[in-house]
This record gives sequence, structure tokens and C-alpha cells, in this order.
Amino acid sequence: MTNSEKSNQMANAIRFLSADAVEKANSGHPGLPMGAADIATVLYTRFLKFDPKSPHWADRDRFVLSAGHGSMLLYSLLYLTGYEDMTIDEIKNFRQLGSRTAGHPEYGHASGIETTTGPLGQGLANAVGMALSERIMNAHFGDDLVDHHTYVIVGDGCLMEGISQEAIALAGHLKLNKLIVFWDHNNISIDGPVSLADNTDQCARVEASGWNSLQVDGHDQDAIAAAIEKAQKSDKPTLIACKTTIGFGAPTKAGTNKVHGSPLGAEELAGARKALGWTSEPFVVPADILGDWRAAGQRSAKDHTAWQQRLEARDSNTRSEFERRIRGDLPGNFEAAITAYKKKLSEEKPKVATRKASEMALEVINGILAETIGGSADLTGSNNTKTSQTQNITPEDYGQRYVHYGIREHGMAAAMNGMALHGGLIPYSGTFLTFSDYARGAMRLSSLMGIRVIYVMTHDSIGLGEDGPTHQPVEHLAALRAIPNNYVFRPADVVETAECWELALKSRKTPSTIALTRQNLPTVRTEHVDENKCAYGAYELAPANGKAEVTIFATGSEVEIALNARTQLEQNGHPARVVSVPCFELFEQQSDEYKRTLIGDAPVKVAVEAAIRLGWDRFIGLDGIFVGMTGFGASGPIEALYKHFGITADAIVAAAESKLK
Amino acid sequence: MTNSEKSNQMANAIRFLSADAVEKANSGHPGLPMGAADIATVLYTRFLKFDPKSPHWADRDRFVLSAGHGSMLLYSLLYLTGYEDMTIDEIKNFRQLGSRTAGHPEYGHASGIETTTGPLGQGLANAVGMALSERIMNAHFGDDLVDHHTYVIVGDGCLMEGISQEAIALAGHLKLNKLIVFWDHNNISIDGPVSLADNTDQCARVEASGWNSLQVDGHDQDAIAAAIEKAQKSDKPTLIACKTTIGFGAPTKAGTNKVHGSPLGAEELAGARKALGWTSEPFVVPADILGDWRAAGQRSAKDHTAWQQRLEARDSNTRSEFERRIRGDLPGNFEAAITAYKKKLSEEKPKVATRKASEMALEVINGILAETIGGSADLTGSNNTKTSQTQNITPEDYGQRYVHYGIREHGMAAAMNGMALHGGLIPYSGTFLTFSDYARGAMRLSSLMGIRVIYVMTHDSIGLGEDGPTHQPVEHLAALRAIPNNYVFRPADVVETAECWELALKSRKTPSTIALTRQNLPTVRTEHVDENKCAYGAYELAPANGKAEVTIFATGSEVEIALNARTQLEQNGHPARVVSVPCFELFEQQSDEYKRTLIGDAPVKVAVEAAIRLGWDRFIGLDGIFVGMTGFGASGPIEALYKHFGITADAIVAAAESKLK
Repeated sequence: MTNSEKSNQMANAIRFLSADAVEKANSGHPGLPMGAADIATVLYTRFLKFDPKSPHWADRDRFVLSAGHGSMLLYSLLYLTGYEDMTIDEIKNFRQLGSRTAGHPEYGHASGIETTTGPLGQGLANAVGMALSERIMNAHFGDDLVDHHTYVIVGDGCLMEGISQEAIALAGHLKLNKLIVFWDHNNISIDGPVSLADNTDQCARVEASGWNSLQVDGHDQDAIAAAIEKAQKSDKPTLIACKTTIGFGAPTKAGTNKVHGSPLGAEELAGARKALGWTSEPFVVPADILGDWRAAGQRSAKDHTAWQQRLEARDSNTRSEFERRIRGDLPGNFEAAITAYKKKLSEEKPKVATRKASEMALEVINGILAETIGGSADLTGSNNTKTSQTQNITPEDYGQRYVHYGIREHGMAAAMNGMALHGGLIPYSGTFLTFSDYARGAMRLSSLMGIRVIYVMTHDSIGLGEDGPTHQPVEHLAALRAIPNNYVFRPADVVETAECWELALKSRKTPSTIALTRQNLPTVRTEHVDENKCAYGAYELAPANGKAEVTIFATGSEVEIALNARTQLEQNGHPARVVSVPCFELFEQQSDEYKRTLIGDAPVKVAVEAAIRLGWDRFIGLDGIFVGMTGFGASGPIEALYKHFGITADAIVAAAESKLK
Repeated sequence: MTNSEKSNQMANAIRFLSADAVEKANSGHPGLPMGAADIATVLYTRFLKFDPKSPHWADRDRFVLSAGHGSMLLYSLLYLTGYEDMTIDEIKNFRQLGSRTAGHPEYGHASGIETTTGPLGQGLANAVGMALSERIMNAHFGDDLVDHHTYVIVGDGCLMEGISQEAIALAGHLKLNKLIVFWDHNNISIDGPVSLADNTDQCARVEASGWNSLQVDGHDQDAIAAAIEKAQKSDKPTLIACKTTIGFGAPTKAGTNKVHGSPLGAEELAGARKALGWTSEPFVVPADILGDWRAAGQRSAKDHTAWQQRLEARDSNTRSEFERRIRGDLPGNFEAAITAYKKKLSEEKPKVATRKASEMALEVINGILAETIGGSADLTGSNNTKTSQTQNITPEDYGQRYVHYGIREHGMAAAMNGMALHGGLIPYSGTFLTFSDYARGAMRLSSLMGIRVIYVMTHDSIGLGEDGPTHQPVEHLAALRAIPNNYVFRPADVVETAECWELALKSRKTPSTIALTRQNLPTVRTEHVDENKCAYGAYELAPANGKAEVTIFATGSEVEIALNARTQLEQNGHPARVVSVPCFELFEQQSDEYKRTLIGDAPVKVAVEAAIRLGWDRFIGLDGIFVGMTGFGASGPIEALYKHFGITADAIVAAAESKLK
């Protein structure tokens, strides 16, 4: 190791802020910050383009700590380089309720936290999305406005998770050469040596997917710097395997799993101070070291100024478009265009699957918004996510707007998170609703972070037919509605589909899942199309002729069935109304008065959804009638399945009338 | 291609049974069966050890069609080799409601379907579990009883899914050299050429994880055979990359995505007949070809007889133990031992976390059952899944009982499915409850298949404290309860934990998830321990002194809080009872009378669970009081969190009393 005394001490500042904070909290992970401190020091003092005084500078380099348990590494860096909201008191309050310094980095808690990490592998896949965004935005706006790197620190855990393979293969395929990943290669996982569970040659593995790999001593700062320089010149993404010692400096625990996830303890911590020559009290960084760190935090200020000048030098249209997209505002003509489109639909009344309706809506949307980036996990023709405006993004042409994500639902969702976090783009992409199970780890993080990611989930019930129970979601609507801060839309026709898309695009702090059918559905919403009725979450689609004896609540493909049941009930002398429920979560946001009135007091309440009952008691009460699924589906033609599982207008009428008697 | 006319025609029998069935169903995937027919023909006619007359022969080779959409390949093989329940009528009824020939292979629908596949990558990971089971059972019972291969066909999709990496790395680490995987390397996925989304060198990739790879022409049967022979001699798992043409024989569509997932159409099908020299009508296999296939089906009959003789030659204890384990019966002394253990607990009343209680129960269980195989996704010390009886399984010693699955929740769950399907073993393994999201794709299949897999999910609420919202499950209990045929247990103390384990082990057709705390809990169940009260799903733990004004329903760590609230309410003159609800699903299986009585008619009903409300209306009604979470958690010490989120006895009492007024 050839580090200068100064550079060692700069790294030690990270090590002891981290270890002392963990010690004070009596909880946390000192091993990674102590082990990766040299990597972080090199990156933040010599390479990273960032401006702590302006943390949201659009062209900053992105840094993702994929191994989020090492959060104190990031918090230390933010404090040391001078982010104003990361005070020493925040460091002292590590892992305390209400602090900015949560156990794992939480997006939005403090500036400079680019994404929420902790669930392993997510950060790496986010970074792929960020690096891809950089290339897309670069193609849209040019080198002078967008030209930055994306750096990541991953641990062994990140690389063992399957999502890492999806991210690695996608990045390699797309030749995201400005993605540089440091592997904190310490050979230790929670249970002990990595060799307990893995013998993968990670360098060979990433090379098999079109990456470079480099290997360095992770405590030799000049060697790390040389590797970064090499990586920056590469035409491929790069993995820099940094051989490190976990808990570097801890006299007896370094290099073992004992230092991974527990405080060092007073004695070990004192020993580390001695071993590394760190004489300061806890939470005190010597003025000269702090000064050097703060200076490092100002390294890019001039770059930032120059960038700002370049932005101001651009023509006003480009500049305002760039700024609009970075702010995340929609174009001013968006709403009017959607309303006009809905009017047209309400006249033409097409009978199409809602997946097709989604494609039709996207054809309008993608024509107005240049920032939507579509995609699919290899189900483009099934998800209907591609429109005339979206051609394939390739390494030769990043300026296009469609990503073939491959059969990688989890990696896709996490990459979309990264794209939304990067800014300038609105990602949407598709798979079958049943495979939301594969993507759920990342979908939860969309909700937790509160970002605009749109999941297009087609084949949303037994209505997909012959593919059978593995492909038929029955519990997925309920399971997705269970995630806090997640809009789950299930539109009933072309008009509702357009409205749900409008809502999803306007929703900046809540991700959306749009569940769509494979089967054709008639246009049922032909009135009041000047208003976005789906914004209420639930609304009366068809009133009763007279005082309602029956209210039928339904979503998506079952709205048609509900309307047919209503017709029969009315014919039989039972006034009945139909309430369409495109979004539970938006309904809950309405006034108590609206909710009470909409649910109403009809003596018989029925809910119809080709899925399980869970969640529907909210509308129909415990003694309401639920027409839907009670278990897994089956393989067969759609007509046979709906009949077999009793999801028919006749079944609704019979159940309602038996209760009316 | 050097295939004989006969071997070509045998493969063609698969091709046309498949293509004709898809054509008749007007739905399905002809491309894979036509492309992989040569591979399957070689495997089933020259290598696979199986006995269609005795499909459950314990030492049969396992064959897994991981690319489950090619189901007609498997159905064709089963019919051709003479499985009695796979008649030609079943083939004709492909994808029809009630047939054995579902769109994707469904475990239990027909003999010879070793696992349910369709969600990509699952079959490969199942096969890793099967191959591991073979090695474990071999170590337990010897070469004469257990000595078989596990063969898999994977497609490009399987290899793109992240779960494949988890499976590959685990198999390589464990040196599962009797695992032989055929990669149907046809360069086509649904969206088009694989190169749209992937450029991974799959052979290099698996080699990086300690596999062999071989490359052959997937239409040259002798070359395939030679590769299998080589693979069988290997000391590593083997990937045989078989270069194939998807839809082999289809004159215009072969080699394109047009033949992947749609019927060929009459003209193309006729063209394929002509091209391949297949003159038979649909669903007719020439007698000589069928005869050759049926003979192939009898190849292993002698082996089977010899194996049976070896089994009978073993001492009666070994034999009966082997047969018990293959049947899946528990040892006769199991129940009594659990009851005795519970009695001891009810006297000692330990205060431990339920994760520790689970370890204590496992210490008893693993002492009685030799077939339990424990593990963890690198959280052994946190999940408490390791006991004195379970030492690490390694390539040098497969006879042990603990798997370090690595940080691979999805692969772990799917491998456990494979172990349960293999027979002779009961797999259980752990991660944090929040990471059930990562494993969900495989957990759903445990439920769909109806197999005994036990998921140990610790750190089951905000009670885990400082790790914060990424690690704190709030919606996961609801989301797991949403999966049909899934027991979600949340025990309140040591006694309930033992009972839940007993139920999980006895549950042969329903997988179990046991949610366990990080924090210590007192023993609350000190009476009636001779009975398994958790078997009711919900039961009265503490009665009201007098006519109940309040019923408090609670699970897990919140039972203690409920009991404290009850004490306060009683002191305030409000008789209150506490119902513990360790398992929603078992409660629903009780008689209406039991359910009505247990829920009771107290004017105030409260549910307490440190999770979201979804599902609780069943117990407390729409106007019941729910004390729990309404959104994501936060990072902080446990005491601060419970107070912050208002999950306290005081909050329960205040809410109940305000309603009583």
C-alpha cells in the first residue's frame, strides 16, 4: 500500500465516523465502511463530479451504494464533502427515529442519497437504469448537457442475488461503458467466508456478459485511481474487483464476519484507533483532514458553473425542454390531448383488449411526451408497450425510446427505478401481471421511494385462458394493493385506460401498476369523458332506475359482466347500479362523504373481480356477495374458465336475487 | 446430421404430436417441442432411467422441462413411452379445461410431470434442489438405493432470469455433477432474436461458477448422446449447449419467433409434414415408431426390478426408514415429543424471541426427524435455523443437513421446491420476512403444487428496529396470506412456535411460512398445552372476566401487547378477551359454529398486528378498531418505533374505551 499519510487519514475519517456512529447507535454495519473507505476516498476526492452545494445538478455523476447496509460510508462522505443537510449531529443520530441517517440509505432523507438501498442487488440494477438514462439523455440533449458517469459499490451479496445477473447482462448488452462498479471483494458474508456458499469467478462472469474486469488492491488508492482511469476509457461497463479487508483496521475482528453487522465494541474500536493512528475523539475530524475533504467537495464547482453556462447558451426551446424534463413536469398540452382523445373514443366505441387500449393511449402520449421510455420483459407484442414513436435503444443508437429488457422482470423494474431517479425520463414497461411476483422486490422500492415508475401488467386474470394457473394472477391485485403508496389501476375499457394512463403520468410521488386484459372489452364509458372519472378511484358508471336494490362493484374486464347483470336485474324489477373501481388507493383519498355516497345503501352489495376477495370487504361489507376466485385458476379457453369459476352475469343475478328474497 | 431414419422419425413423432395438439387447441407453443425433439429423443430412448409403469420409483432419473411453455414436448414423451394416464385423448385435449395436458406442465396432473414449470428459470432451480436431494439421500442410504441423474431442458428465457444465476452458482458450489442441463440454444425469444436483449456467453458464464460446458448440434442425436456420456463422467454440473432451430421442420417459420407461441397454421404444418417426411394423420403415430418408443419406455424395467431387490435386501430398519421417508410420513414418536416439549416450556416460561423459540423447537424436531434439511440465505445467525444436528452440506460431505444457500432467496425457495418434490427430505430455510418478496415467484409455486416446504421468515415487523423500512415488512403478511393454499403462521411465544412447527411438518399438501420476531417475547400460552391450539388457526388465549365488552385479536409479538391492554381494560371495569390468531388459513377451515363463537359478539372488536389492516376486517368488521401500520416503517430502536406508530397497550385501551362510551 502506497497511500500517503494524508490520503490514509482521509479514509480513516470515513472509518471512524462510521465505526463511532455504529458504536453510539449500538447497531449497524462498520465492516463495509472501514473496508471500502479507500475506494470511496479515491472516488470522491479524485473522480466524482458532484457539487454538495447543488446536490441536484442534473449532470452530476451518480454514486450508488448498492451494499446499502454500509450506509455510514455514504453518510460520512456526505458530511465530509459538505452536504449542508448532513450535519455531524445527523451522524451522531445514526439509526435514530427521525434522523436523516437511517439504517439503510433512504432516498429523500438527505441530499446525495441517489437511491434507497439495502435489499441486495437493487442498487446495481438501479445504476444500470441511471447509466442508460445518461446515454439516452445524452443522445437527446448532447454532450454539453449530459455527460456523466455512474459509479456503484457492490458487495458479495449484491453479486449473489439473481437480480445482479439481470442487471449485468443488460448493461453488457447495452454497452453502458460509463457504468463503473467497484466490487468490495472482502470474501466475507454474514454467515462467514463467501466460500461457504459461492465459488463464482465474478470477473469471468461479468466478462461473459460483455464487461471489462479489473483487479486491484482495494486499499491502494493509487491503484484504485489507475483502475478508474482505465475503466473510464473502456467501451464496456467495468467491474473493478477491489480486494479489501472487511473492518480494515479492527485489530482482532478485521477480515471476519464479526465486523460485518455489529458494533466493534469499545476495546476493538480503541484498538483500531491505535492501529490506524487516529487520535481524534468520536465524531471529531481533525481540521486539516476535514478541510481537505471540504476542498474535495468543491472540486467540481467550476465544472458546474461551466455546465450552467452551456445550458444558458442553448436555444431557449431546448433549454426549457431540458429543464421541464429534469423537473419532471408534463408538457402543457398533455391534458387537453388526452381529453380530446377520450372524446373520440367515446364516439367510436372500439371493442379492444385493454392492453390494446393501453397501446392506443400510449400512441397519443408518446406523441406528446418525448420523455417516456417504453419496454417489455420480452413480451412486447403481448404487453402492447411499443408505439410508432418508440424504436429500439441500441448501443449504436441510444436516442431511441424502447428497451428490450429481456426476460428479466426484476432487473427491469429496478432499472426503471434508476431511470426515474436519474431524471429527465419517465419509464414504463411491461410483463404479465403474474410475473409481478418476480419484480416485487423492486416494485416495493418504487413505492418506498415515491417515484414515477409505471408498470404495465397485462394478462391480468384467468381471462388469459389456456396458459393456465402459473400464468393466471389471482392474488396479485390484492398483493400489489397491499404495498403502501402504490396505485394499482384496473381500467374497464379504452376510456378508463386513457384516464389511468393520465393519472399514472401525473403521479409524481406514487408509482403505478396498470393491470390490463388479454381479451377484448366493449367501450362502457361513453359519457362524461371530459372529466377524469378514474381520478376518484371509483365512480358510478351506470345508475339504478329507481332506488337501488343492488350495487355491483367491478373492475376491468368484470365491469362488462356487471353491466350485463345490471340489465338483467333491472329487467327483473330490481333497480341496480354499477360502480367501476379502477383504483382502490385513489378512492381511499376521496372525502368521507364521497366514499359513503358512492358505496351507498343498497340492501345487496356485490363485488365482481376475477381474483380473490381480499380487500373487497371495504366496499361490500362482510356479508356482501363476492363473485370471483377462491383459489388458483386452470388451463382452458376463456369462456370455459369464466363459466367454470362462476364469474358470469347469471351468477351475479342469481346471488343477488337470492339475497333480495 | 447423422441421425438414422428411425431416430429421426422418433423425434418427428414428438414434433407432430406437439404441433398437431397446438393446432387443434389453437393455442400453445410448437417451437420448442419441434426444436428440442432430438434432445428429448436421445435422453428418453438412450439415457433416462424411468419406468412408466411405476412413475414414482424413488431412484428414477428426474427430468425437468424448465422451459415449461414447451409442455407438449413432455406430454408427447409421456404418451410415447407409455405412461398410462397420458392417453392420446389427453393429447388431443391439450389446453382444455379438466385435461391432464394444461398449457404448462402442472405437477400432479399426470405421472411423469416432476414439477410445475412455466415461470421461467424455476425448473432449473428446482432441478438443483432435486440433484442436491439425490446426493443427500445417497449419503444417507447408499449407492444401492439412491443413484440417479437430474436432467433439465432450459431455454434462453430461463437463463436470462436472475434465478438462473442463483441456481447455477449454488449447483457449481455444491459440485452437483449429476445435474445435466440441456440448453435449447435456438437464439430466439418472444420478441425476436435473443440478441435484441442479450449477448451473454452462457458457456463462459456457467464455467465461471464451476460448471462444465459442452456444445453440440442439437439435431445430431449421436453428438447429443456423446455429450451426455461426457457429462455423466464429469465432477461438475454440465451445461450442454445444443444449437437448435426453433420450430425445426416448419418450412417458412422455423428459426423465427413466429413459431414460438402460436399454432403453425394448416399450410405451414402441412409443409412441415412434407419437409420431414411425416405422412401420418394428426395424433397418429405409425405402429413401428410407437413400438420403438414403448420399448424405450421399458428400458429401465430391469433396473427397477434390481433396485427393488436391493431395497428388499437391506435390513428392515433401513428399509422401513427409507420407505417412510419416501412416503413422507413423520416418525411415530413425533407428536408425543412435541407435546412433552411444550409441557416443559409451559413450566419454564422462557422469554425469548420467536426466532429463538423456532431454533429451540427445531432442536427437538431435528433430533427426531432425520429428513429435515435446514438452511438460510446467509442469515443463519439471524434466522436461527441451524441446530446441533445440522452441519454444513459440502461437496465432500453430502450426508449433513444444513445448506448455506447464499444470498439467493429466490433460488433457495425454488431449490426447496425441488427437494420436496424429490422426496425423502423436508426442506426448511430462512430469510427476513421482507425478502419473501424476492422469493415469491417460487413460494407461489410451492402453493400451486401443494408441497411441504417450510419458509422460516424472521424479523417479521418494525420490531426489527434500526434496519429501517427496507427491512421492515408491513404488507408481507397480507401479501403471503393472499396466496391460495399457503399457511402463514405467526406464533406468539415458545409454545405457539412449537405448535406451528408441528402443523407445518404435518401439512403435506400446503407449504408454510412461519413469521418470527427478532425481539424477545414472554411465554403467554401456559395452559392446555396438551392440545395443539394453533391448529384452530385462532383460539381464545385469555377469556374475559364476565361478559366481554372487548375482544382483542392479535398475532405474534402483538399478543403480549393485547394481553397488557386486556389487563388494563379489566382493571377499568371492561371485561375483555384476547384471541390469538396464529394462522388465518387454518381458522377458515374450522366449522362455522367455531368461527362464529370465537369471533363472538363483544361490542368492541380490536385487531392488533404490526402490519397493514388488509385481511383483518374478517375478524373485526368494517367498524372494528385496527391497531397497526398504515404505511412503511422507519429506522429507529424498537421501543421508539412501537410508540411512534401507536402500537401499544395504551393505544388499544384508549381506542376501545372511546368506542365503549
